[in-house]
Amino acid sequence: MSRPKIERGLVQVYTGNGKGKTSAAFGLALRAIGRGLKVYIIQFIKGGFDYGELYVIDRLPNLTLKAFGQGKFITEFPPSSKDKEIAKETLQLAKEVVQSGEYDIVILDEINVALSLHLIKTEEVIELIKNKPKHVELVLTGRYAPKEIIEIADLVTEMKEIKHPFQKGIPPRKGIEY
Amino acid sequence: MSRPKIERGLVQVYTGNGKGKTSAAFGLALRAIGRGLKVYIIQFIKGGFDYGELYVIDRLPNLTLKAFGQGKFITEFPPSSKDKEIAKETLQLAKEVVQSGEYDIVILDEINVALSLHLIKTEEVIELIKNKPKHVELVLTGRYAPKEIIEIADLVTEMKEIKHPFQKGIPPRKGIEY
Repeated sequence: MSRPKIERGLVQVYTGNGKGKTSAAFGLALRAIGRGLKVYIIQFIKGGFDYGELYVIDRLPNLTLKAFGQGKFITEFPPSSKDKEIAKETLQLAKEVVQSGEYDIVILDEINVALSLHLIKTEEVIELIKNKPKHVELVLTGRYAPKEIIEIADLVTEMKEIKHPFQKGIPPRKGIEY
Repeated sequence: MSRPKIERGLVQVYTGNGKGKTSAAFGLALRAIGRGLKVYIIQFIKGGFDYGELYVIDRLPNLTLKAFGQGKFITEFPPSSKDKEIAKETLQLAKEVVQSGEYDIVILDEINVALSLHLIKTEEVIELIKNKPKHVELVLTGRYAPKEIIEIADLVTEMKEIKHPFQKGIPPRKGIEY
């Protein structure tokens, strides 16, 4: 398969309180690797959690995934210095992966949440976006995307929760919610 | 891997004018097959179009995909009798696949668009939902989900377009938009 060339990589943002943000990013990754593109997924905060998608990644060519975090939800604010340290390392990897230009698409999953928790600085992410190689497509997911990120993005979808089974007290189900 | 049992399958709807509906459904499929669940994706209207995800499906276990349509956008209203006939066949397959109970998740991609074009009847889809085996999870995607579908669904996310590169005149890119 000939690998198509992306002439101009854009910045996509999936935010909002509805279900489907990370799934949309993974679906996008699936489409891209179907075309022979190279995709790198970096997950903020989610490291150590158990998700179904992690068990199928190995079957997919040209897809790399790294997840960082302490395996528990961050419930304190300001977050611990350990959480900040991990998020900084995650962002550092993101910078290196983006700058390398080796990957057509770099997905920064839950980066918006990391921003909203002040684990990392918005200016640093803006800088990462501004300095990215032209052909690299960036995908930023997570609730609470800051307005500066919305402004600089080319594509923004707000996933809006209209109805959610958690409202009815149905707990997360293995294989579907995680 | 032991296949988890879904006690109670829900009805999920991804609608709205923003990018990410089909991608979210595919991401959901990826997570599910990571857990050993069986997934069937039936695509209304999209048959004959060339999408990146079609080239990677074969690598994924427990995932079946069938797409129906004439390979062109339906621009006339009312649509041709051929388009109606194809949509009816698609719905018939959907009923059979759902009723068989063999698949944990059945994704009816773009069914909302088929409904909005009056290719199939809302009552028939409501009936399909009401008669589904309890453990089957249904995922309905596409713009313009009718209010009857929203009402009966357990989970609804509206993908809202905040910004889209088409607005700036950037054409669809292979590997990303298709």
